[in-house]
Amino acid sequence: MSRERATAFVPGHVTAFFSAHSAERPAATGSRGAGLTLTDGVTVRVSATGTSRGDGSVGAREIDGGPGTIGAVEDALAALGAAGGADAAGGGDAAGSADAPGETDGVPVDVAVESDLPIGAGFGVSGAAALGAALAANDALDRCRSENELVRIAHEAEVGRGTGLGDVVAQARGGVPIRVEPGAPGIGELDGIPAAARVEYVTFGELSTEAVLGGDTAALTAAGEDALDRLRADPRLPTLLDAAREFAREADLLVPEVAEAVDAVDAAGGEAAMAMLGRTAFALGTGLSDAGYDPEACRVDAAGARLVE
Amino acid sequence: MSRERATAFVPGHVTAFFSAHSAERPAATGSRGAGLTLTDGVTVRVSATGTSRGDGSVGAREIDGGPGTIGAVEDALAALGAAGGADAAGGGDAAGSADAPGETDGVPVDVAVESDLPIGAGFGVSGAAALGAALAANDALDRCRSENELVRIAHEAEVGRGTGLGDVVAQARGGVPIRVEPGAPGIGELDGIPAAARVEYVTFGELSTEAVLGGDTAALTAAGEDALDRLRADPRLPTLLDAAREFAREADLLVPEVAEAVDAVDAAGGEAAMAMLGRTAFALGTGLSDAGYDPEACRVDAAGARLVE
Repeated sequence: MSRERATAFVPGHVTAFFSAHSAERPAATGSRGAGLTLTDGVTVRVSATGTSRGDGSVGAREIDGGPGTIGAVEDALAALGAAGGADAAGGGDAAGSADAPGETDGVPVDVAVESDLPIGAGFGVSGAAALGAALAANDALDRCRSENELVRIAHEAEVGRGTGLGDVVAQARGGVPIRVEPGAPGIGELDGIPAAARVEYVTFGELSTEAVLGGDTAALTAAGEDALDRLRADPRLPTLLDAAREFAREADLLVPEVAEAVDAVDAAGGEAAMAMLGRTAFALGTGLSDAGYDPEACRVDAAGARLVE
Repeated sequence: MSRERATAFVPGHVTAFFSAHSAERPAATGSRGAGLTLTDGVTVRVSATGTSRGDGSVGAREIDGGPGTIGAVEDALAALGAAGGADAAGGGDAAGSADAPGETDGVPVDVAVESDLPIGAGFGVSGAAALGAALAANDALDRCRSENELVRIAHEAEVGRGTGLGDVVAQARGGVPIRVEPGAPGIGELDGIPAAARVEYVTFGELSTEAVLGGDTAALTAAGEDALDRLRADPRLPTLLDAAREFAREADLLVPEVAEAVDAVDAAGGEAAMAMLGRTAFALGTGLSDAGYDPEACRVDAAGARLVE
């Protein structure tokens, strides 16, 4: 009773602050921290293509209408016995591009990723795409996995590619997630700030998650733990933003364009911070508009990752 | 920086099957089981009234436009330092009516509950109202509690009143929650069936949750554990409905009107089951319409409990 095709939506996630935590198992690796999930996000469509094609390809891959692959997506699909991506190999310039696509021992699937958000700018697009692919492939191929299992598969794929540590579990929950303990469902622990809000953002370019996560993260982790303690004592949005600004300074991650935007919003009486990790400033309400920027606007996504019909 | 007034929406929850688990602490008491959260639900508005009124009342209570109180709502409000309900005492006919309202040592609040769903018919309205009151009162009175804390407060209130065991944690999550371990956040454990679906329901009247939960629940719990094992091995909607039908038979809870509706849906090729605990049949898709009933229709609620603006 396979449905053969399915679509999932996964919200974007701007991390306000975090600390990195390594473990032997990818499911236990992750981050503590907090952020906002957004109604701007990633839609993933998966179709069972049934058989390999005449040209030897085993499933097409698209990102925003063009050819492209995302490593974490391929790994999540492989964990669900779905294959493909061979014809798109090398065609993608996305974060964590699949370096060994083309496994042909699974069911071939076509995968189309559409993102409201730029890749590499701190919105957790690769994690969203991996989680969306897991949800949609599970449904299209009738793989009988639970939500927690699918979140774990996507989290492991994202951690394995080094493209993120906490986006997937946050995106699965929705709202304003607090990552109290790192890791996949059953290992990590989540809480949330009870809040609805309009969110604005401006992006000035990419920042490599892999480069930061691959470097020395000791100072970053100390700053992230301080921020988390502060937020857990007062789980409200203004405190989240204030803790985020302090984290960016202490962890020395603030880039000039973002610092300027955050200061401008502050001067206009609003609340803004830097998205970790991207050259992106985000603000509550109309903070960036009020400061004279021309931002994108969306809202906190109450639902988290879900299948759509 | 109190907002003074706030509104929360909490989805209804039809329990498909469950097992009851008592513990010394209310937070550790609860149920295992599974069910569907619904886009039909309960909206709770809380306003800080500022001061006691001239007539000695300390906050009004309304249910669907008339006077009325719900015990679990009053207890959740009291846990957040909100008071009121005295002028509505005795005016309510809702499940678990407050038997000792009128505590005046908190901040007086007006509370209005509006339900899309009937009370006492297996939709978890009392739990939804308690959780909605907790979310809205926290925001209106700026109580700085996290989502998990608010869910715990509402769960404890519901358990304390004997009006439910697992609705609150399910309603907080949204979707199609599986209650893997009983209890409030940090104690209990949740998973979910990844699914979007239209849901239909018809209600034939009330069934007392207190009476069933207060009686011998050994057979019910054995049947509930069997159903949960089955669903966890195959977490899909048709399996949920099938396990629910078997549970209702084994636990001897099926009432005649509901049995007739479930059989009629089956005969028409659909999937239906009984809502635990209410004289309510629910079906996937157009199951009840196809069987000639005139049901209410809604959808699985992807988001779970949330503040609305």
